[in-house]
Amino acid sequence: MPEFTALASLDEIRRLVGDLPGPDLAARDAAAERQQHLTKPAGALGRLETLALWLAEWQNRHPPRIDHPRVAVFAGNHGVAGRGVSAYPPAVTAQMVRNFIDGGAAINQLCRVADADLRVYELTLERPTADFVEGPAMSEGECAHAIAYGMMAVEPGIDLLALGEMGIGNTTSAAALAHALFGGTAADWVGPGTGVDAAGILRKTETVTAAVLRHRAVAGNGDGLVTLASLGGRELAAIAGAVLAARLARVPVVLDGYAATAAAAALLPLAEGILDHCIVAHVSAEPGHRRLLAAMGREPLFDLGLRLGEASGAALAIPLLKAAVACHAGMATFAEAGVSGPAE
Amino acid sequence: MPEFTALASLDEIRRLVGDLPGPDLAARDAAAERQQHLTKPAGALGRLETLALWLAEWQNRHPPRIDHPRVAVFAGNHGVAGRGVSAYPPAVTAQMVRNFIDGGAAINQLCRVADADLRVYELTLERPTADFVEGPAMSEGECAHAIAYGMMAVEPGIDLLALGEMGIGNTTSAAALAHALFGGTAADWVGPGTGVDAAGILRKTETVTAAVLRHRAVAGNGDGLVTLASLGGRELAAIAGAVLAARLARVPVVLDGYAATAAAAALLPLAEGILDHCIVAHVSAEPGHRRLLAAMGREPLFDLGLRLGEASGAALAIPLLKAAVACHAGMATFAEAGVSGPAE
Repeated sequence: MPEFTALASLDEIRRLVGDLPGPDLAARDAAAERQQHLTKPAGALGRLETLALWLAEWQNRHPPRIDHPRVAVFAGNHGVAGRGVSAYPPAVTAQMVRNFIDGGAAINQLCRVADADLRVYELTLERPTADFVEGPAMSEGECAHAIAYGMMAVEPGIDLLALGEMGIGNTTSAAALAHALFGGTAADWVGPGTGVDAAGILRKTETVTAAVLRHRAVAGNGDGLVTLASLGGRELAAIAGAVLAARLARVPVVLDGYAATAAAAALLPLAEGILDHCIVAHVSAEPGHRRLLAAMGREPLFDLGLRLGEASGAALAIPLLKAAVACHAGMATFAEAGVSGPAE
Repeated sequence: MPEFTALASLDEIRRLVGDLPGPDLAARDAAAERQQHLTKPAGALGRLETLALWLAEWQNRHPPRIDHPRVAVFAGNHGVAGRGVSAYPPAVTAQMVRNFIDGGAAINQLCRVADADLRVYELTLERPTADFVEGPAMSEGECAHAIAYGMMAVEPGIDLLALGEMGIGNTTSAAALAHALFGGTAADWVGPGTGVDAAGILRKTETVTAAVLRHRAVAGNGDGLVTLASLGGRELAAIAGAVLAARLARVPVVLDGYAATAAAAALLPLAEGILDHCIVAHVSAEPGHRRLLAAMGREPLFDLGLRLGEASGAALAIPLLKAAVACHAGMATFAEAGVSGPAE
């Protein structure tokens, strides 16, 4: 595993992308071969079967295993929160980080049920990003630093990484990223977030419109990293970094909701298939997420009306992935069990 | 808990239905009250929140808990399987029961991941039901006996019951039940099951058409129990019995796929809200299941392309339900965590 903390510029991040490993097709083929013999009608486990193949190809091993899943939650503060785009005051970001550390948040309970390791990464909460209506949220150096920080979430031994965030104001940042990356109008990408009213949604929409207009020269027509620096947040840049580090370390990734998916989407222009080692756990009740998944051609695992963030949906996917692995590795074959195959 | 094994007639089952308990609205209100104070935006946990309320009202306690979930798989053989309606020979039912006992089936792995107790109930596999194109699948007494047998799956101490089945030929039985209960044409309810080809689907459709025509005098316009005796199977009657016993014992139920849902649906004519203590885990890839859920007004938790049966989808829902309970009971309130509420 290379040392990432010294990465000081977006160019260094771009150089990393040139070396990304692809899928292990031999592991995938071995998984597909085994699957044909397991005691079930062909294809009867549906998505569990495709997940087992996906895990094999991105863990580079057959059979795939999930023994050490990690949930990483990145927290950051946003200058744009000063524009009244959230139902909650910016102080809630740090308060919720304390709640994560004390074990009182939803994600703590979900990690316990999933038997997953939870790590919380604070990105200088006392220093919000700049208001991106006025200028870039981060300098390129700041963005590179946040990306490098996020890379540290990938440590030796983990075999699955679930990524989420906490940051008052960050559905506004997610909407701005999605608007810059995929076009449409700001209203297409803005929703109630933590629960703003109609006036709040209007403020968010105006804010996103102004921000993307302000950064139109660089946002959406570069490689995604400048878009991330311009319209993102530190926790979102860190998620992008974790996605890249996971690819390098051959660790499959589960993305959470709107903000986490938008952060990962900023990497799409960098390389073909750059998110192939990622799945999206669920489609959020935040309406922009459904549109974003459609734009990315992604099918989530769940549609449960969640809109909490903090990796909650991604953590819920861990037992499902463990189930896919358990069936794949643990089921008997027709021959082993003495079960007849289909009648001729 | 009453002693059910002596139930010898459908009339005795009907008498039980007169005494079914309703939801515990006080437990539900207590859950709803607590939910307002947990450290998350109102409603942000989506379906997990409604599941916590549902568990409270049907477990008759607040907070709800899932400490002893049971997965019950009922296995039966079908006379109609002689008509070439399955891709697999009838011997596979007993072979798969052996596989369940030996730990080699999908459901064994899924129960391990969910930390759930698995019980497998065989219903005289050596004696298939009668071919329901020729006459009733079961006599009323046989059906009552199978219902009573299924009731035994509800034992003291279990706090959640996931129900599924194994039975070569039983998607044909499920289609016949659904057709009799909800109308339409046989083709609306017939699908490939374990994987029959177009000729097999045609045979299934003709079989279901003939069967429902044969039993039109009693099927679909009675109380459901005669329909179950006429067109069901022993494992499906047992599922209906387990659903009733769970209601009496205040144990919430998770239904699996097409056959399990059709079995439970046969109870619908017996009493208003008779399945309110049940949820449907997933919508199967077997096309009749989606139509059946729509007819029942049910929203499944998952849509993962499963079509295995053996309670596989229901078992997958257990970690999700545990997650709902864990968040509800374990999260801190805003006051406990010192987190600010929404800005005014």
